[in-house]
Amino acid sequence: MADTNPDPSAAVRRDRLRAAVRSAGLDAALVTKLVNVRYLTGFTGSNGALLIGADGTDVLCTDGRYTLQSARQAPDVQRLIDRASAPALATRAAERGLRRLGYESHDVTVDLAATLTDRAGGAELVSLAEAVERLRAAKDDAELALLRQACAIADRALAELIAAGGIAAGRTELAVGRDLDNRMLGLGADAPSFETIVASGPNSAVPHHRPTGRELVTGDFVKLDFGATYGGYHSDMTRTLVLGPPAGWQREVYELVAVAQAAGRAALAPGADVVEVDRAARDVIVAAGHGDNFGHGLGHGVGLEIHEAPTVSQLGSGRLADRMPVTVEPGVYLEGRGGVRIEDTLVVRPDGPELLTTTTKDLIVL
Amino acid sequence: MADTNPDPSAAVRRDRLRAAVRSAGLDAALVTKLVNVRYLTGFTGSNGALLIGADGTDVLCTDGRYTLQSARQAPDVQRLIDRASAPALATRAAERGLRRLGYESHDVTVDLAATLTDRAGGAELVSLAEAVERLRAAKDDAELALLRQACAIADRALAELIAAGGIAAGRTELAVGRDLDNRMLGLGADAPSFETIVASGPNSAVPHHRPTGRELVTGDFVKLDFGATYGGYHSDMTRTLVLGPPAGWQREVYELVAVAQAAGRAALAPGADVVEVDRAARDVIVAAGHGDNFGHGLGHGVGLEIHEAPTVSQLGSGRLADRMPVTVEPGVYLEGRGGVRIEDTLVVRPDGPELLTTTTKDLIVL
Repeated sequence: MADTNPDPSAAVRRDRLRAAVRSAGLDAALVTKLVNVRYLTGFTGSNGALLIGADGTDVLCTDGRYTLQSARQAPDVQRLIDRASAPALATRAAERGLRRLGYESHDVTVDLAATLTDRAGGAELVSLAEAVERLRAAKDDAELALLRQACAIADRALAELIAAGGIAAGRTELAVGRDLDNRMLGLGADAPSFETIVASGPNSAVPHHRPTGRELVTGDFVKLDFGATYGGYHSDMTRTLVLGPPAGWQREVYELVAVAQAAGRAALAPGADVVEVDRAARDVIVAAGHGDNFGHGLGHGVGLEIHEAPTVSQLGSGRLADRMPVTVEPGVYLEGRGGVRIEDTLVVRPDGPELLTTTTKDLIVL
Repeated sequence: MADTNPDPSAAVRRDRLRAAVRSAGLDAALVTKLVNVRYLTGFTGSNGALLIGADGTDVLCTDGRYTLQSARQAPDVQRLIDRASAPALATRAAERGLRRLGYESHDVTVDLAATLTDRAGGAELVSLAEAVERLRAAKDDAELALLRQACAIADRALAELIAAGGIAAGRTELAVGRDLDNRMLGLGADAPSFETIVASGPNSAVPHHRPTGRELVTGDFVKLDFGATYGGYHSDMTRTLVLGPPAGWQREVYELVAVAQAAGRAALAPGADVVEVDRAARDVIVAAGHGDNFGHGLGHGVGLEIHEAPTVSQLGSGRLADRMPVTVEPGVYLEGRGGVRIEDTLVVRPDGPELLTTTTKDLIVL
């Protein structure tokens, strides 16, 4: 998809990074993390680096496999073809006489940093920290459109799976997961967002269970944690269903998690402290005596990466802002019995969060 | 699969690295590259680091999600549970009074290196270069067994696809690729080795084409480059078929690539220079006047990574050794018309290479 449409927003994003480069007193930023290169250019190849000049000159470097693709996807930057993309741009920076060069010290290895220093002709390498990731946290309209579609594909695939009787006693977790993945691909997903989790019966008590050959049986909780990637953007959702009439404890745990999840969603607002958002949901679970059975954070940002800023948990820091997509995914896990997690992807907006994953959160009984 | 069987070879591999650590005058090696941690312990989680002590004490660190799994997969090393796995092991090294600590400078970022230096209590950090990758190039029996199975799954999936009429006019490249992927998963693959390439008609002239909605038509070359991962080991194979009676130029190009590929396979032997192996196949193509239409290397090592040492190309260096699995994959690409690549995975052995991908290399006409 993004293979054929140069991204009109990329130039705006580059100019935002350029402003940060100038205000940090740098001559240029050398961007090496591939997903950041994609964000700033639209280029989706597997090898690439980008030089953003304070003087307004931007150069994308990639190798010969991507000569045509880079021209099509990033027609509005200079292009350089060299297999060693980041070192070639360091050389280019030296040729241009640049003296202070920002680089992504959280992405560049020690060996690559030595090569860059060698090639940069005496220029000083200065950490950009995670400047591009910070820009990426709040999404522009083009990004939100892709994320909405990624979420719609996941919702629709689950609806199809249920309608086709794909979640049924006798079917294995692996078979259910592949069925769901194929439906997402059939609906136009680039790929699943991550290895789809199908966790049934006691396995549903394992937060990040990998699907096995276990056959679903009546009485099981079936926890599905999955998402679709579309144009590079990841959706992320979890629903927990029950096979056959739910037992009392199942209704009770489900209802508890649903209430906690609603509380977490209600706390999403520009300016909200991420620790407070986590607490809004966690307090509900703690008050019910299940605090020890919710052993992970409430959520995370989502976009070109499945996990990105902000971290919405007790260990996070900072505040939400308008246009940040985040997940809200509390869970209660009872070892040996089963567990429930309910997760949505939402976008923080001033007038209340926009819910992107719209599958019902009423308990689905199959 | 590897989730339930602790690897009996891992202790042997650790002792080989330990010998290298001692001979380099190091007190320990801190291994952070995940695939290397897996190789040395059998642990398959997504977060982990390993400290190999010259004194014989080995410690695996991972986070709380993997407490049970790490105990099951790596029962014969000490375990430490900490989300920041590499820094926690640097602290542990400092507590043990280690002074010279090897680390993977091709894997560790500049930021992580700063943290490790900070936590290592004055110990000197020394690059291990790619010591573990060098150990990994020649495979032990346990690895070869997994690789054979990975190749058998790919062979069988292709046979099933062909038998089911899955490669046919009117079907899209994407549909053919998904069908092949699902067959590999159904035969027990962990996952496809990489994004399966299905390139039809003119698209077959693009070496690394990504599947599209193009429908296959009679007269097309159909190039399939794919593989299965099994127990972490990657198979890699390419076959180029033709839909309907082949044209003269198609037979000609196919025959040329087949002869070149046979020449490349015949050159595989312990002690062979990788540049000479590449040349053995390339000379055939150059002599036929198609040297400019074979723009990539002849092959690469394969194992826990899809591309690993050795590089078998004009740009490579070094010699093959017994037990190295490599691909042999010459191609001739005629822009706008079509192309052929034929690729096998083989293991270098003293008595001639062991062919792991056994699908016929006669031109398959569908």
